[in-house]
Amino acid sequence: MTISRRQMLTSVATMAAGGAIADGLPSPAGAMPPDVPDSMRSLGQPILSPPYGVPSKFEKNVVRRLREARATDTEAFSVTPLQNLHGIVTPNGLVFERHHAGVPEIAPLEHRLLVHGLVDRPLIFSMDDLLRFPSVSKTYFLECSGNSSTEWGKSGYHSVQRTHGLISCCEWTGVPLSTILDEVGVKPEAKWILAEGADAAAMTRSVPLEKALDDALVVYAQNGEMLRPEQGYPVRLFLPGFEANMSVKWLRRLKIGDQPWYTREETSRYTDLLPNGKAYEFTFEMDAKSVVTFPNSERSFRDKGSYEISGLAWSGRGHITRVDVSVDGGATWRRATLQEPILEKCFTRFRLPFVWDGRPLEIQSRTFDDKGWAQPTRARLIAARGTNARYHFNAIQGWKVAADGGVTNASA
Amino acid sequence: MTISRRQMLTSVATMAAGGAIADGLPSPAGAMPPDVPDSMRSLGQPILSPPYGVPSKFEKNVVRRLREARATDTEAFSVTPLQNLHGIVTPNGLVFERHHAGVPEIAPLEHRLLVHGLVDRPLIFSMDDLLRFPSVSKTYFLECSGNSSTEWGKSGYHSVQRTHGLISCCEWTGVPLSTILDEVGVKPEAKWILAEGADAAAMTRSVPLEKALDDALVVYAQNGEMLRPEQGYPVRLFLPGFEANMSVKWLRRLKIGDQPWYTREETSRYTDLLPNGKAYEFTFEMDAKSVVTFPNSERSFRDKGSYEISGLAWSGRGHITRVDVSVDGGATWRRATLQEPILEKCFTRFRLPFVWDGRPLEIQSRTFDDKGWAQPTRARLIAARGTNARYHFNAIQGWKVAADGGVTNASA
Repeated sequence: MTISRRQMLTSVATMAAGGAIADGLPSPAGAMPPDVPDSMRSLGQPILSPPYGVPSKFEKNVVRRLREARATDTEAFSVTPLQNLHGIVTPNGLVFERHHAGVPEIAPLEHRLLVHGLVDRPLIFSMDDLLRFPSVSKTYFLECSGNSSTEWGKSGYHSVQRTHGLISCCEWTGVPLSTILDEVGVKPEAKWILAEGADAAAMTRSVPLEKALDDALVVYAQNGEMLRPEQGYPVRLFLPGFEANMSVKWLRRLKIGDQPWYTREETSRYTDLLPNGKAYEFTFEMDAKSVVTFPNSERSFRDKGSYEISGLAWSGRGHITRVDVSVDGGATWRRATLQEPILEKCFTRFRLPFVWDGRPLEIQSRTFDDKGWAQPTRARLIAARGTNARYHFNAIQGWKVAADGGVTNASA
Repeated sequence: MTISRRQMLTSVATMAAGGAIADGLPSPAGAMPPDVPDSMRSLGQPILSPPYGVPSKFEKNVVRRLREARATDTEAFSVTPLQNLHGIVTPNGLVFERHHAGVPEIAPLEHRLLVHGLVDRPLIFSMDDLLRFPSVSKTYFLECSGNSSTEWGKSGYHSVQRTHGLISCCEWTGVPLSTILDEVGVKPEAKWILAEGADAAAMTRSVPLEKALDDALVVYAQNGEMLRPEQGYPVRLFLPGFEANMSVKWLRRLKIGDQPWYTREETSRYTDLLPNGKAYEFTFEMDAKSVVTFPNSERSFRDKGSYEISGLAWSGRGHITRVDVSVDGGATWRRATLQEPILEKCFTRFRLPFVWDGRPLEIQSRTFDDKGWAQPTRARLIAARGTNARYHFNAIQGWKVAADGGVTNASA
């Protein structure tokens, strides 16, 4: 879609008044715009205020929030403000949280990782040990399998932070798990690995050995710096593309075995009851999914004219090949531009120029990955998974835009 | 270089004691390692503590620091702790600072960008206007042309934070400057653009129109969130690969003209006096450069055995094609592994496995870019630029490693 110069001009900018323009020198207050602002008339804040920088005070509403009220503040979710983000990186301070027994405080010098079970040599690693191994850095999304679980029914949530904010995307650095397994020597009969966290929930999940030998990482850094406490400091497992719960935080133990452990987090939780009464369990990969993040319920179209519709797409099985956007509730679709580089198991930012004529809309996005998966409609997903499902909701999300620009959840 | 299993085993990890291992359940204090840690015996910190997250208290020394004492705290440099970073992303709280009159506080709703001069239609843009344009997100390094200026002589600095910390790398989101120029209509005789900041220094630089029409951006977000105040909130110019001073922060004005303005920051500063008495000015592109960041003066080899030498390489002209590492002061070289994806005008992380036998070393790195540039030796750079030079130091950096693992600057 092309935006004509006339459209952009009439809708976007203010024609400057003719005549002389202040050249950065003090000028009489009230002179023609743009008057020399106050910020040029006195010295600013000193350097290193503070040494570890913080956002502008004008951005104080850009924070994580509880997705919903919970019985306790240690078994809870907080969600990433996708409506305020640009590009694909989630800054560490805004990465979503999911805790089962709060955030443990772990001194890195005292922390140890034990690797044992069906191995030739059980070993204990300190953080110093782990930092000596050959490392890799990769940008991957991380999504809770409960992300958008609000959308199986009518959530009443109109904020994309609440409907889709249990996902973030960072550059992760660590050691390939395969390197560590090579050190301990995995026995031929091994097929599964139990990963245990050092939190009071002893978060414990079974990981297929195949994944461990593929792209699994033992991660100590995110977005350049050491992990944040709420992200598993000082070390976590990271399973690219898999439901986030399996990327066990505060990793203290890996036990190699020949079958899954059927822990609480893979039976009573993180398993869905299908309409036929069977359990849909060990649903590891996060499915191809996308969501529009602008316009949103906090920032939308102000008046008629040109805008950029924008959002995020991802797939736990590979990379995004295509995103389509509809502004008529899915009747017709237009192909969005994908920001390069397009990376595996990573956010892909999509964008589409759009001229709003002031009429109500329903905006949707749908995505496709390189493994042949497509994002389903909500009706189709519910037909397949039934109404007892809690996890892996990846349906197309609709946002209604009213004539006044207000954005609401089309299915809420 | 291959690390044998025996080498890694004997140097890295502790053999686990035989017998039963605690399975996440409380066990008697003092039981065999790894004993169930205190973090598993009581609930952790509540969620959203705080809503905008902060690093672990155990990382409190990972901060920006003044590069050197200055006469004032508003005309100063602070440097990024490269010795503590992994991968290529610099978290926003650790991005280096260079201010000429402190950090202005600018309310985004009141901020305006004026574009005028040799244009068909002078225009004034609000932040809302800018956010409506088609946007792009790109990961680029940003380097002060005074980075490593300490190394022309004998700096006495042994920390890579002080010698090389005037550089950072982030994902930047904004509007192509060419889009904005298309809106105002640049007249045929235009060749240069004056960019002015809204700080009390009225930081002002001349930018070639060619760069403006190439990959220049008007940027409002870094690493996903809105710019930090010290990085130009709410909007800055961004000229990929060019000396950072030209990427004018707190951007309030772009004036299109037919010749450069020869502002203070391009005559008395950011220009070098060559041995032949001529001025080396308008030196825009940052040259091909690399530096080893591990081992470093804060974290190094502890004892004999296997490690990973690691560092960063970049070029303002294109992308990195190769990094070599020497451990014998440049006598012999070995090719390092480059982390993919390798991006234009962006950090590239390089790594080389290394087994230390406990003997003193001098570690160096040298890099090459796709435009045919190579990082020079210090002697060769000084022969070309003389001893009056202050900017664009890109020579090979040597780090001496003593028998006790201590790291010092080889030329300090």
